Amino acid sequence: MKKIEVIQNVLEANETIAKRNQQLLNKHRIFAINIMSAPGAGKTSLILHTIAKLKDRLRIAVIEGDVASTVDAEKVQSEAKAVVQINTRNMPESCSLMAAMIESALKELPLDNIDLLLIENVGNLICPSEFTLGEHKRVVISSLPEGDDKPIKYPLIFIDADAVIVNKMDLLPYVDFDIAAFRSSVQGLNPKAEILLLSCKTGEGIDRWYSWILKQVETNLAKL
Amino acid sequence: MKKIEVIQNVLEANETIAKRNQQLLNKHRIFAINIMSAPGAGKTSLILHTIAKLKDRLRIAVIEGDVASTVDAEKVQSEAKAVVQINTRNMPESCSLMAAMIESALKELPLDNIDLLLIENVGNLICPSEFTLGEHKRVVISSLPEGDDKPIKYPLIFIDADAVIVNKMDLLPYVDFDIAAFRSSVQGLNPKAEILLLSCKTGEGIDRWYSWILKQVETNLAKL
Repeated sequence: MKKIEVIQNVLEANETIAKRNQQLLNKHRIFAINIMSAPGAGKTSLILHTIAKLKDRLRIAVIEGDVASTVDAEKVQSEAKAVVQINTRNMPESCSLMAAMIESALKELPLDNIDLLLIENVGNLICPSEFTLGEHKRVVISSLPEGDDKPIKYPLIFIDADAVIVNKMDLLPYVDFDIAAFRSSVQGLNPKAEILLLSCKTGEGIDRWYSWILKQVETNLAKL
Repeated sequence: MKKIEVIQNVLEANETIAKRNQQLLNKHRIFAINIMSAPGAGKTSLILHTIAKLKDRLRIAVIEGDVASTVDAEKVQSEAKAVVQINTRNMPESCSLMAAMIESALKELPLDNIDLLLIENVGNLICPSEFTLGEHKRVVISSLPEGDDKPIKYPLIFIDADAVIVNKMDLLPYVDFDIAAFRSSVQGLNPKAEILLLSCKTGEGIDRWYSWILKQVETNLAKL
């Protein structure tokens, strides 16, 4: 009983801080996306492409979450308006970003000069589903080599996603992946999720992602 | 302070149960391997190949760990001597198998008729590194499409691995993966780890994995 109570407290505290984060973001008219995936599915690649394509239209900042290392932040640094690295190693709950980490990171960012905040979560399909960060939208990236059964095996993260990206479409001839089966699994869990098939490597399908972001930013600004 | 204390208690309790599991396994002369990887790296494929190749020499049982679903256990069922499925969804710490789950699973297995126990952990490169299960050896599978930077980003799971498998070598012409860089990162963290490059799809390099297992089983039996 004791243990469960502590965990519930952690989740409740996280929820409170996440709401505060979103209020701060709204005050500065910043739209935030929480990008989640298994290790190596292409979160950093997608972020790099997004900045390259949209940086003339939106001022983009990035928060990079990793257990260890700064390799992703270094890749993003020259492109983004601002970057903050969070390393979760040695923290008690180290398998996901949490709202309190984002609260600290927001203090390091020039909030009046940002339109879009991309938050790269830790590579994990389990823990990040439990912790909201204050983001406006949640995106999950699957990649073809992981197989089409991921929504069945990790349902929670797909249930709450606003968009599900299938990356590495260029590998379709070389791996076993049933797109119809994947689509049907996602829709069974979450009929409202936008499903976007693309390849960061070849650029195939990626324009639909840019359009999705621009539409979300616009819709959010209209609500504020 | 309170929260950290609870987590330490969880890890200590896990360690105690893991030791008890290993004593039980040793009593029955069973060799156990904990197989860990990111989602979709090929744990189930490797297990299926291993059973097909070694089932005439070793009586093999499998414990399948998943957040949700029984798809992997169903794939393995017809091949293995015995299979137990553990679903961790709805458990407080749901991002890894834990020793207590294995203790329950061992009660469901015909321990006198097993030589080798393959434990497929939950697809995750973070949490499983913290929880020993009572296994004799720990194996981490990386796969080429995940990229060569995984040891840098998820060091803990590589530090404790006895063997590191690089799966999906058949995709080498189609993805960016620097084998020398990967090898050097693993060796920097863990010079003793055996590194095995293979493809479950084509069978390339997989014989070295079978030899590794047979040698480990033999060495362990000689020690008992």
